[in-house]
Amino acid sequence: MNQFIDKIAAIVGPQGIITDQKDIDPYTRDWRGRYHGKTFLVVQPGSTEEVSQVVKFCAANQIAIVPQGGNTGLCGASVPRENGHEIIINLKRMKQIRHIDRENNTITVDAGCFLAQVQESAAAIDRLFPLSFGSEGQCQIGGNLSTNAGGVAVLRYGNIRAMTLGLEVVLPNGEIWDGLRGLYKDNTGYDLKQLFIGAEGTLGIITAAVLKLFPRPKGVATAFIGLKGAAMAIRLLELARNLGGDKFTSFEFIPRICLDLVFKHFPALKEPLDQIYPAYVLAELSDTSTSDVDQIMHDLLTQAKRSIKEIEFAIAKNQTQAQQFWAVRKKIADAERAEGVSVKHDISVPVSKIVEFLEKSEAALKTAFPKVEIIGFGHLGDGNIHYNAGMAEPDSAAFVARESQSVNRIVYDIVARLGGSISAEHGLGQLKRDTIKTYRSAIEIEMMRAIKHTLDPHNIMNPGKVL
Amino acid sequence: MNQFIDKIAAIVGPQGIITDQKDIDPYTRDWRGRYHGKTFLVVQPGSTEEVSQVVKFCAANQIAIVPQGGNTGLCGASVPRENGHEIIINLKRMKQIRHIDRENNTITVDAGCFLAQVQESAAAIDRLFPLSFGSEGQCQIGGNLSTNAGGVAVLRYGNIRAMTLGLEVVLPNGEIWDGLRGLYKDNTGYDLKQLFIGAEGTLGIITAAVLKLFPRPKGVATAFIGLKGAAMAIRLLELARNLGGDKFTSFEFIPRICLDLVFKHFPALKEPLDQIYPAYVLAELSDTSTSDVDQIMHDLLTQAKRSIKEIEFAIAKNQTQAQQFWAVRKKIADAERAEGVSVKHDISVPVSKIVEFLEKSEAALKTAFPKVEIIGFGHLGDGNIHYNAGMAEPDSAAFVARESQSVNRIVYDIVARLGGSISAEHGLGQLKRDTIKTYRSAIEIEMMRAIKHTLDPHNIMNPGKVL
Repeated sequence: MNQFIDKIAAIVGPQGIITDQKDIDPYTRDWRGRYHGKTFLVVQPGSTEEVSQVVKFCAANQIAIVPQGGNTGLCGASVPRENGHEIIINLKRMKQIRHIDRENNTITVDAGCFLAQVQESAAAIDRLFPLSFGSEGQCQIGGNLSTNAGGVAVLRYGNIRAMTLGLEVVLPNGEIWDGLRGLYKDNTGYDLKQLFIGAEGTLGIITAAVLKLFPRPKGVATAFIGLKGAAMAIRLLELARNLGGDKFTSFEFIPRICLDLVFKHFPALKEPLDQIYPAYVLAELSDTSTSDVDQIMHDLLTQAKRSIKEIEFAIAKNQTQAQQFWAVRKKIADAERAEGVSVKHDISVPVSKIVEFLEKSEAALKTAFPKVEIIGFGHLGDGNIHYNAGMAEPDSAAFVARESQSVNRIVYDIVARLGGSISAEHGLGQLKRDTIKTYRSAIEIEMMRAIKHTLDPHNIMNPGKVL
Repeated sequence: MNQFIDKIAAIVGPQGIITDQKDIDPYTRDWRGRYHGKTFLVVQPGSTEEVSQVVKFCAANQIAIVPQGGNTGLCGASVPRENGHEIIINLKRMKQIRHIDRENNTITVDAGCFLAQVQESAAAIDRLFPLSFGSEGQCQIGGNLSTNAGGVAVLRYGNIRAMTLGLEVVLPNGEIWDGLRGLYKDNTGYDLKQLFIGAEGTLGIITAAVLKLFPRPKGVATAFIGLKGAAMAIRLLELARNLGGDKFTSFEFIPRICLDLVFKHFPALKEPLDQIYPAYVLAELSDTSTSDVDQIMHDLLTQAKRSIKEIEFAIAKNQTQAQQFWAVRKKIADAERAEGVSVKHDISVPVSKIVEFLEKSEAALKTAFPKVEIIGFGHLGDGNIHYNAGMAEPDSAAFVARESQSVNRIVYDIVARLGGSISAEHGLGQLKRDTIKTYRSAIEIEMMRAIKHTLDPHNIMNPGKVL
């Protein structure tokens, strides 16, 4: 063991290894405290070449690897298992912006760059990198790519997959695949980068990427809208699209219970509206040239008032107020965590099936667990709901421990009947690797296994995750 | 042989097979007349289930298959080779629009649907399916997907890959993979559909797809702009993005020689501008809400007149004139074909390298072949140029026969040095399957081979194409 560590230290230098268990500990836990694995070594290489050499040495010694970025994942993909046999390769030291090509609208970055760092580098040359969500200050691009991260602007810009032109990947045998091309069109065989995006580190370690930059919006309008429920929100979405076309970048659904939790745990935040409503929509509209986004938002809400009763809205008067609206939305996950545990789901269905999903799931869960508290919020415009079921304290932990599987079964069966997905944006990780076998065909699971076996025959890369 | 054909006929019925060599002949030639293969059987199944049964029977008998759509491809991927051992499975009988989900903005279509049919179905519910190019009346969705088709709106909407949510595929063993999900977010393992998109039928037969629909533009402005050359066009593109953000859907570069050819072979078409210019840009700007696209286009051209000398422009006064502008652009390929053969390339480089590519390639080709005629036009905004080198008649055929490889070498070496691709949107097919080995790393080719071998171990699907 010591010999193994010495050899790794010789590759990455003393600043690139952590062997003290106290220092290792934070790297073995996930952000939400659901997973706590073990390892004898955290390696932090300083370059792609070092990653390559470390992986080659691990492959030769049949030591498995957990690739790790900001470790903000929600399904346990970036923490080791409990057997203690896997090492962690953490990319935090690789955080260079390698190249910006303004004319080509691309940025080439190390995988260890924080998402916020990429957003800022884009802004500095008057461009937009549109990926955005709560953990953007801590999460890293490599992790974003490995989970095909989504967030609050998918409606307009898609997941990070849609923003990615090229990748550099260290393969399970330690070889470096240089696919760092900054091309908008390239039809030369299978699009290999697509395999690594969303693979949660099971096929290789993404070390760098060429990402697309977008024109910066010149106008942004943000509205917080109170209404009766999801069916009204879907009607509002339809109206929004008719009036604003593809200018709506965000359309977030927030039931009242989320606001109650946020204000309880973050009392500095303020109610956005005068009245209390059963549900809310946080809508954002932006335009990259000079058309009047405020006018479109006003038109939308005037029309909505006419056709949808019991609706109230506040349009942000300035950026500060827009940020206040967003703060409420972005604090939901933290507030939930502060409140206690629940059985969490990150599901998607076709947008046309959202209302049916919410109604059927609530009815089924309330039949099975009359006192259940349901929190279903999120990216309505993408058909993606974060759907969590829990109990009021002090029963919440016991409920989760006892009933998780039953709750999952109820929710996922409804999702499946509606043609949906049991993981819209969080991935499978450790959390859903067994469950997915029930909800995807044997043919599909078998193709995935075959690809994994082909690219990683010795199961070196993140074993026990995804498949 | 007859037994084999009888069995296939029993699966698809008499209307689903063609065995007469005279009737088979058109299916064995490509659109440009570059490839002429052989086969003893064209099968036209009427359903996915029939495709599955035919493939299962072929796999059991080790008969290889050429999947075929509209057969408008440019690299010979959809015609059989000359050995006569492969059968063609042509999907033209599968042309149902299976389902339209207006609220989810998706359309589910059989692979045999014409592209134009999908565009029309979208328009009928006030939506846009943005894929568009010259052959849209003949090409089929299955072929579009298999070549990851691009076209004239990639600048704004991406290739068809970016418009695809789900696929149904008959695998090389005949099993049906039902991945027909209409989800905007789905992170449940490897994104298998990405492998089949752009695989040119070498991994399976795409039988259906769920495609995204987009808001229909409410305003479109189309301008035909005369200017000095590519460097000016790149400056205009930068100005366009500053003023119009992501509203520019097309930005096509057209050197004068293309117009000369078009007017020679299609004399009914008209000069768009009063003066003759060395080069032109056809720019289209659209907006899905109500902002004034004409104003943005006017602002662009006013600014351009100030900062770029020697520029003239015509903004289409109405849809008819816009169509006249587009007709000139869309007839270039036909005019070239009527004129004679040339050594054709479909290359891409980063947008920032376009001018360097054009200058270096022209200099190198003129040194090697002083009388060479170069036609380089296309999707400048995507970094994609259709770059063709030929000789004036009567020397053109001899030049192509003798010098193709030398010309390719000169052009592709420059492309490679600039980080580009030797096939931006046409694929590899038969034409570039050897060449690609020079321009992609051994690691990359090896990964592709490994995936092909994993999914199609007996090389049933479109052998001799891509790899």
